[in-house]
Amino acid sequence: MSHPLNDRLSAYATVAAELGVDAIALVPGPNFTRVVEHSFMSHERPFVLVVPANGPAAALVPNLELGSWELVGFDGAVFDWRDQTGYDEAFAGLMTHLNISSLAVEGQVMRVFVHHALKKAQPDLKILDGEREISALRMLKTPADIATLQEAIDISERALHRTLASVKLGQTEKQIEQTLVQNLFAEGADDLSFAPIVAAGDGSARPHAKARHDYHVKAGDALLLDFGARKNGFAADITRTVFLDHVTEEGRAVYDTVLRANLAGLAISRAGVTAHEIDDVVTGVLEASPYGDRIRTKTGHGLGREVHEAPYIMRGNHVALPAGTVYTNEPGLYEIDNFGVRIEDDILITEDGYQLLTHFPKELMVLSC
Amino acid sequence: MSHPLNDRLSAYATVAAELGVDAIALVPGPNFTRVVEHSFMSHERPFVLVVPANGPAAALVPNLELGSWELVGFDGAVFDWRDQTGYDEAFAGLMTHLNISSLAVEGQVMRVFVHHALKKAQPDLKILDGEREISALRMLKTPADIATLQEAIDISERALHRTLASVKLGQTEKQIEQTLVQNLFAEGADDLSFAPIVAAGDGSARPHAKARHDYHVKAGDALLLDFGARKNGFAADITRTVFLDHVTEEGRAVYDTVLRANLAGLAISRAGVTAHEIDDVVTGVLEASPYGDRIRTKTGHGLGREVHEAPYIMRGNHVALPAGTVYTNEPGLYEIDNFGVRIEDDILITEDGYQLLTHFPKELMVLSC
Repeated sequence: MSHPLNDRLSAYATVAAELGVDAIALVPGPNFTRVVEHSFMSHERPFVLVVPANGPAAALVPNLELGSWELVGFDGAVFDWRDQTGYDEAFAGLMTHLNISSLAVEGQVMRVFVHHALKKAQPDLKILDGEREISALRMLKTPADIATLQEAIDISERALHRTLASVKLGQTEKQIEQTLVQNLFAEGADDLSFAPIVAAGDGSARPHAKARHDYHVKAGDALLLDFGARKNGFAADITRTVFLDHVTEEGRAVYDTVLRANLAGLAISRAGVTAHEIDDVVTGVLEASPYGDRIRTKTGHGLGREVHEAPYIMRGNHVALPAGTVYTNEPGLYEIDNFGVRIEDDILITEDGYQLLTHFPKELMVLSC
Repeated sequence: MSHPLNDRLSAYATVAAELGVDAIALVPGPNFTRVVEHSFMSHERPFVLVVPANGPAAALVPNLELGSWELVGFDGAVFDWRDQTGYDEAFAGLMTHLNISSLAVEGQVMRVFVHHALKKAQPDLKILDGEREISALRMLKTPADIATLQEAIDISERALHRTLASVKLGQTEKQIEQTLVQNLFAEGADDLSFAPIVAAGDGSARPHAKARHDYHVKAGDALLLDFGARKNGFAADITRTVFLDHVTEEGRAVYDTVLRANLAGLAISRAGVTAHEIDDVVTGVLEASPYGDRIRTKTGHGLGREVHEAPYIMRGNHVALPAGTVYTNEPGLYEIDNFGVRIEDDILITEDGYQLLTHFPKELMVLSC
């Protein structure tokens, strides 16, 4: 009888076969959570699920997690280890049991100490970075995934409305950030997708700025908010840039350019478009403007269980986006020491086009505050 | 003239020399943040700071972070790379510039894709896991570190008081978790130290349980809350277990055992005690009780910028704790399918003994709710 967990595992066995390796290793993180449908912490404790191309999966589990692991319904071999005795013996047991010679791992998730423990247990083990192929299984979102992500996005947008309504000149970036975070949780977030970016004035020109305790927002500032709620394992990611009290002509022109770039990306979004094509069109609009030297980033990235995941929306990435992909369209222009503008939507690719999951208005907004 | 950043970097040059390697590599995470005094995201983008045993440091920085990197005041060589062209050339430039043959990395922070990029740029580079020695520099907390951590703990305890005051029979674990999280942010948290554990009844027997949507707390349940606020880069971590409405004789006996273990660990805490000695005393109390088969974890771990960091408080770890170390004392007893109890304090080691940073009462608490 087919078991849903074993069905999910078998998709990774197929990836192993396609990669020409004997097995795939997953460690706690988005792929692991997707497969076992429970989330686990790892910290200093190795925790590995190995899915061979052929044969049953096996796991290395910290002893204290065995009670939680039972809930997963895993019927393969389990090698547990205790804090006080260490994990070398469990790795040795796992590798002897598996009898494999090559293993693809999630290069952006697995940390070096786990890599070293695997090599210590089996020095001739060939370890490849299979991040792209392994995580590609997350690219196609199910209707349930989309509904959960939409919930995270809706929470984020409600928090943004409340936050912008409370902004006052003279507040610090940090105060605005704190308000935003409280609003996110009040609206139902489980967690933050990432530490929010709340940046005004020259801070908005740093794409990943941190909110400052000592910067008080002032009339004429661009105020950039890039943030998201996490809900039931899915991460929203939205950016809006507003102007406080008034906007200069330059501010308006830059904003209009970024918005046109964003809309150009939307216009060609549909199943089959490549990541390269989207970035080429979006970045093309920015390059054709007088502000081409203010480009700092690619157009965007996939969005789901991780706030940054495949597909990366950039020139040179010729992957075609199937219906069910969600990506961020987030062009920006940043002039160091002056100001920056970014507008970021979350977009679901459909057969006929796209569906905007973010609904917050994108018209130039000048806050009276 | 001495520069504070260069002073901080030189401490890692000393670690490189002690490890007998040519350099140390740091990637965004707690050590990196401690050194550069700004926090950076990494996600899919490699970002590496290399500190040679001799000579100036060098960095590989994503181009979009250059504006933020300027704030760090770093005067070494910088190799930046752009999303659209990739990072291979920057790694090659960095490694040619450094001219080193061995490198110690943070095994619990660096991910495999960065390890692979380093090896691709210089296939004969010897990469060692220097996690323990590199992160050991974080073990000694400064008075400013302690004050910040205390603030995070105080926020956490105020949130716990508010949360327990609102618990009602029939609520789900998830509802209680949501209330706790909202209280943490209302009290001033920047972020969560980790996804909180709110577990009642049989859930409390799983040390890292996740709050359930479908479990309604009932009279007689143990309710375990393990959580913490993050504030200005430091992470609190506290656990309390209370009983709802009433407590069985077994519940009381188990609670008393765990509390005696916790207190025994406190009693021997002072500068010079080893991690082994603390765990031996704490675990010894649990082993001597009728509940020895319910032990699932070591006594605890260091606490600071990371919620789990050195020193790990376990038998076999003979590191002596100097004054200025902060560790968690968190004995627990867990009977699968029945219930679990954990009591966790955050403790500062001093010359003469210790200072409890957590102040929440530890007497057996039976909530009328």
